[in-house]
Amino acid sequence: MVNIAVLGYGTVGSGVVEVIRTNQEIINKKAGQEINIKYVLDLRDFPGDPVEKILVHDYDVIVTDPTVDIVVEVMGGVDPAYKFVKRALLLGKSVCTSNKELVAKHGAELIAIAEENNINFLFEAAVGGGIPIIRPLKSSLTADDITEITGILNGTTNYILTEMAQKGSAFEDVLKVAQEKGYAERNPEADVEGYDACRKIAILTSLVTGYQVNYENIHTEGITKITTKDFEYAKAMKASIKLLGTSKKDGDTFYSMVAPVMIGENHPLFHVNDVFNGIFVHGNVLDDVMFYGRGAGKLPTASAVVSDVVEAAKYLKSNIATLWSEEEMELGDFAKFKNKFFVRMKDKGLDDDQMMDIKNAFGNVLYVKAPGIVDELAFVTEPICEGDFAEHIKNFDDVYSVIRVDF
Amino acid sequence: MVNIAVLGYGTVGSGVVEVIRTNQEIINKKAGQEINIKYVLDLRDFPGDPVEKILVHDYDVIVTDPTVDIVVEVMGGVDPAYKFVKRALLLGKSVCTSNKELVAKHGAELIAIAEENNINFLFEAAVGGGIPIIRPLKSSLTADDITEITGILNGTTNYILTEMAQKGSAFEDVLKVAQEKGYAERNPEADVEGYDACRKIAILTSLVTGYQVNYENIHTEGITKITTKDFEYAKAMKASIKLLGTSKKDGDTFYSMVAPVMIGENHPLFHVNDVFNGIFVHGNVLDDVMFYGRGAGKLPTASAVVSDVVEAAKYLKSNIATLWSEEEMELGDFAKFKNKFFVRMKDKGLDDDQMMDIKNAFGNVLYVKAPGIVDELAFVTEPICEGDFAEHIKNFDDVYSVIRVDF
Repeated sequence: MVNIAVLGYGTVGSGVVEVIRTNQEIINKKAGQEINIKYVLDLRDFPGDPVEKILVHDYDVIVTDPTVDIVVEVMGGVDPAYKFVKRALLLGKSVCTSNKELVAKHGAELIAIAEENNINFLFEAAVGGGIPIIRPLKSSLTADDITEITGILNGTTNYILTEMAQKGSAFEDVLKVAQEKGYAERNPEADVEGYDACRKIAILTSLVTGYQVNYENIHTEGITKITTKDFEYAKAMKASIKLLGTSKKDGDTFYSMVAPVMIGENHPLFHVNDVFNGIFVHGNVLDDVMFYGRGAGKLPTASAVVSDVVEAAKYLKSNIATLWSEEEMELGDFAKFKNKFFVRMKDKGLDDDQMMDIKNAFGNVLYVKAPGIVDELAFVTEPICEGDFAEHIKNFDDVYSVIRVDF
Repeated sequence: MVNIAVLGYGTVGSGVVEVIRTNQEIINKKAGQEINIKYVLDLRDFPGDPVEKILVHDYDVIVTDPTVDIVVEVMGGVDPAYKFVKRALLLGKSVCTSNKELVAKHGAELIAIAEENNINFLFEAAVGGGIPIIRPLKSSLTADDITEITGILNGTTNYILTEMAQKGSAFEDVLKVAQEKGYAERNPEADVEGYDACRKIAILTSLVTGYQVNYENIHTEGITKITTKDFEYAKAMKASIKLLGTSKKDGDTFYSMVAPVMIGENHPLFHVNDVFNGIFVHGNVLDDVMFYGRGAGKLPTASAVVSDVVEAAKYLKSNIATLWSEEEMELGDFAKFKNKFFVRMKDKGLDDDQMMDIKNAFGNVLYVKAPGIVDELAFVTEPICEGDFAEHIKNFDDVYSVIRVDF
């Protein structure tokens, strides 16, 4: 029997308890032994709830209990999660977590502690919810030089963008509906400004490169400026607009960003809609692979956490190697990252003059039209360095939109 | 240093050598030690080829060499692969294989021998080419009661069906082009009759259930009867026709089949086109996940084989548990498998009489029309047991098409 303690009885924590109780027999079989929930830690009381009898308010009870083998951290946030997790690992207990902030910030250190103590620090649920991506990166995509990893990593923003694309609704209106449906937080900043996706692409990039990628260094833009008109142009180009977290290798350098990007209908992420997530990987021999599923939600996320518990139980006294050193990965200078840009600006009616300015600034561009939209010039550039683009676009006034293009 | 021997220097075998040489540094790092190709076994000579010096014609040289740790079997076919692999395992050498026939037929036995000898028998490349699916099933989707696994498992037939759908071409014409392009064998039977997909869904179902599924017991239909008119109806219903290998759980019973199926545009496999493969899994808590990538081809398949080599090197003297017992899984009686059917038959001009016969046979059906097709009645049934459908359809003559429907 393996005893586990669940830290936090919120959405994911109660999901973990529910998944283990619902699928107890299957889970025991896969783990090769019984998985027993010995404690649930929460500051609150849950009178009448099945966990009432195993609920504790004091982490010391859990961490000092030598019979607890695995600690499941699903509280979220860095404090006190970091202290709790570190203490557990130092005491020889494996930890499974869904906490992307914790993993993005302290992953390398916690992995090193787990390795030293011959136990495991696992975090499948920290990226892509129920989608298996962390373990495949660690133990399946190991024969390749991975040159790109790009994901739709946030279900809330993907829902909003899908609704905008399909119904022609405005961002604010869809956000309101998403909040009513519980798909978006009352304070949606972490989602709509891309901060959540940023932490996730930082984790994925760390796993791909084997070095610590600091998420503060990743250029991050959200979706708040995307308009219905942008989608009309996207539609005219048979493209869609998705919030992507992406890391691309150019030579020996990885360039990373989070930003809305127009992708064409042949991109494997094009059809990833609603609250679903998708993670696209390109390897030099594997070519393209894509992983698709529910990137959030109580039970899918809990499923990923429990799959980590099963793995931790199978390897209770041996460390599963994770190549993610504490050494920092220096990302490529964002100003040198080459991208194509879609630009919409006021048509000043000066025709040749304005188009000559555009040509002088951005070289040959492809002008695009969307049905019914007048008084605008819209175009797609060739690949240009971010720095050069930023330098030149400043000289144009009445710019309505700038969206990167990947097709 | 880990010494490996590659059995068979055909497409996949030469791919394995190429992948290891191209990505040697990355692969060594992931494996935690140097992967050295000590031997390549082939009956042929390859004068001037880089493997010339390590080429052997006699398997005894390899299997009796105590410094060979891992045998890579990429010859294909059951004989002599089975004997070679079994002997290697019994002598304590791990085996990595891309051989679906071997795994489908002898997987359970070879897994048991590997377990007894504390080594590994790995076969990521046997299903889905470069797509990680075997390892995710073994070590990621472990918290779920998996109620469905359905895949586009054969790139050749998917290419043919995609061309038929997009260009309105006839099966025979597309097959000819596919053969010219090297996507289809000169004898295409194993692909177009579904035999290849059958072995693959048998392997996946064995892994999902933990018991030996005998592929001979899986109802298997190919794509040779699919016509351009069928695609016109599919298009009218916003559906597509895909060759699916599927296993669905109903109660405690799994029903399996390989057959062309109409799927709707919301199905995650709908957009898996050309030579790509996709594998869809539904778990009771995970909900839907889908894995997408190149299901065949020299380098993607070799990438999967080499990822197994890395894993075997990491776990050189310890067995990674695979739940696939030699006990046979009794699949549900195919006659009791419930499916919806799309049927096209001659319109006899008898209107009410014919439609009454249809209603009496199949209950309420949904009649469908495709632009420009006359003199036919086409409809989709409610879910009916395969046995009942077969019994009733016999009573109708001039039936043009029967295709299962999943939307």
